[in-house]
Amino acid sequence: MGIRQTRDPDLALMVSDTSASAAAVFTLNAVKAAPVVVSAQALRRSRGRARAIVANAGNANCATPDGVQVARATARAAARLLGIREREVLLASTGVIGVPLSERPILEALPALAAGLDRANFAAAARAILTTDTGPKTALAAVELKGGLVSVAGMAKGAGMIHPRMATMLAFLFTDAELEPAELKPMLAEAVEAGFHRISVDGDTSTNDTVYLLANGAAGVRPSGASRRTLARAVAEVAERLARAIVRDGEGARKLLTIEVEGAANDRAASRIARAIANSPLVKTALAGADPNWGRILSAAGSSGERFNPARVEIHWNGHLVCRRGVAAEFSEEEVKRSLEASESLLRVRLGGRAGGRARFWTCDLTEEYVRINASYRT
Amino acid sequence: MGIRQTRDPDLALMVSDTSASAAAVFTLNAVKAAPVVVSAQALRRSRGRARAIVANAGNANCATPDGVQVARATARAAARLLGIREREVLLASTGVIGVPLSERPILEALPALAAGLDRANFAAAARAILTTDTGPKTALAAVELKGGLVSVAGMAKGAGMIHPRMATMLAFLFTDAELEPAELKPMLAEAVEAGFHRISVDGDTSTNDTVYLLANGAAGVRPSGASRRTLARAVAEVAERLARAIVRDGEGARKLLTIEVEGAANDRAASRIARAIANSPLVKTALAGADPNWGRILSAAGSSGERFNPARVEIHWNGHLVCRRGVAAEFSEEEVKRSLEASESLLRVRLGGRAGGRARFWTCDLTEEYVRINASYRT
Repeated sequence: MGIRQTRDPDLALMVSDTSASAAAVFTLNAVKAAPVVVSAQALRRSRGRARAIVANAGNANCATPDGVQVARATARAAARLLGIREREVLLASTGVIGVPLSERPILEALPALAAGLDRANFAAAARAILTTDTGPKTALAAVELKGGLVSVAGMAKGAGMIHPRMATMLAFLFTDAELEPAELKPMLAEAVEAGFHRISVDGDTSTNDTVYLLANGAAGVRPSGASRRTLARAVAEVAERLARAIVRDGEGARKLLTIEVEGAANDRAASRIARAIANSPLVKTALAGADPNWGRILSAAGSSGERFNPARVEIHWNGHLVCRRGVAAEFSEEEVKRSLEASESLLRVRLGGRAGGRARFWTCDLTEEYVRINASYRT
Repeated sequence: MGIRQTRDPDLALMVSDTSASAAAVFTLNAVKAAPVVVSAQALRRSRGRARAIVANAGNANCATPDGVQVARATARAAARLLGIREREVLLASTGVIGVPLSERPILEALPALAAGLDRANFAAAARAILTTDTGPKTALAAVELKGGLVSVAGMAKGAGMIHPRMATMLAFLFTDAELEPAELKPMLAEAVEAGFHRISVDGDTSTNDTVYLLANGAAGVRPSGASRRTLARAVAEVAERLARAIVRDGEGARKLLTIEVEGAANDRAASRIARAIANSPLVKTALAGADPNWGRILSAAGSSGERFNPARVEIHWNGHLVCRRGVAAEFSEEEVKRSLEASESLLRVRLGGRAGGRARFWTCDLTEEYVRINASYRT
């Protein structure tokens, strides 16, 4: 639509037929993009209700003189076209920072998007929000609740690599169940924790990171009690699948790595250790080279700031025990190396503590292609 | 000497003619290599005195069943050869983790090293401790104190890249001034803070990181008061030069980047912000591609966890103002790009706060060569 220089679609409009409850998780970065500022304000004003999301790729609308005006003009134009209130429009942007986002191509493109609204266009919208992703990321779940069938649908665009501070992650989750905004918030928090926080996007985030969850009640089902728990699990599962898709499609990535840490002092400690391993460039390059270098894993775990007894650590690469009691186990280097050439690998780190704290994380390999992409992203 | 598979020298023996005061800073990693454990113990037993350092490259002597025995055998053999006490021998190792270090090549090589001890071999020792470094790193300073001339000499080997958790950093500092162990400790702490901590080696460290400072009094000068301050500055300067040399020779690095942060809430906040910028792969790849992408710098600063007002930020790339009041300044993209192709660049980030907290950091660019090196380091 002219926001980015390529001809790829770069604007998506998503609309609910009825007013939906809405919850959001925004970036914690001290520098927040205009769509984040404006959408957070809209959600406060609407008391957690929304009808539409306008998302663009190609420009982050961040750190520019009139970013907030452009964001507001976008929301206003969408609201007018759809006959809804400005505060019912949520925004999300991703792309380059510091280059003014011109509102004209957006305002010109919106009428055609509004006219072409169709549930069949879900995949097209998922395409329009991509940046360096190689393909769209969507996930769908249906759950039978007391009262009827309810659906959960989601789309996401990837964070360059999954390491903190890397690139923008956007995810939009939708359900046709009926829920109050107050019921939606914990559900979204749980989904973010189960999915997007397991790929290291929390704390250190981009200026634009945004996750929305909308519930419009179109299914005519108002879940409570056990039903709400079931729905929450479905939302978390969709988030987890999107999160894994993001990692799998990390910039330059060829391999997905699942990291399971067990036997930590508690779940939080396990999570910090798993994150330290997931973020270690030395572990990620070893995976790229199919090198079963468990020493780097032990060292990364030790640098997490959490305490454990190295002499009790067991490390398993794809089911092969490679480190036992903190030292090399007997294993076939060739066999493990071969297993690491697959597109998915599983790393289990058993710390041997009695407390049983555990965590699961996903990361990808760090390849030369990653550097190639990021050394020439803008210019 | 047969510790690593190449024919490069891999063992260094450094000896003081007289008993020296000694101080050390060791890794904070929960997993500590055997030479770290054994040397920390030796220093406690000797109450901060040492006569010799034995350092090897090619093997970290970490996470192996009998690492401590091998380390002790090494210290014992060196002590016997030199006619000193075992607790007066300090150790340091760097290389692969989890592969047993065999003591035979070390014990076989030590007699020749002891027989060939000569101050002319300083550079040769600095060569023997290297791993993926492309050249030795040494620094020398001489200061005229009340009482006479005093020298400070140092050598270091690089931490792969300067990002935390990356590789082992070893540095050995020597002075012929006369100082008590208790006087040496704060001097080393200051030098580490001024140098090695400014390249992000603290907190998240490798299993083997070690910095030693030895003072043997051979110059016959016992500095106190202002003289001791002068000496401390010289030691810090040598540490800073070694630290910069480490960054400049980062794995795959072609460019050195100096980061100056000003106008933060305090020096500690400035330091955290500078570190966040220095560690950002997106900033480091932008430098590799000579891309004056100040948006990535602003975003990295914002992800540091420190608060500041983005609307007051000024960013200067090699003297060119590229961001003013948090948005793009007018500048010639071509000119800044050209300046970023030089082997050294200066990034100044003025946060605009009144408190005036400031910090300086060094980092290097992240290149495809870095990935190539680390995807095939061991196998």
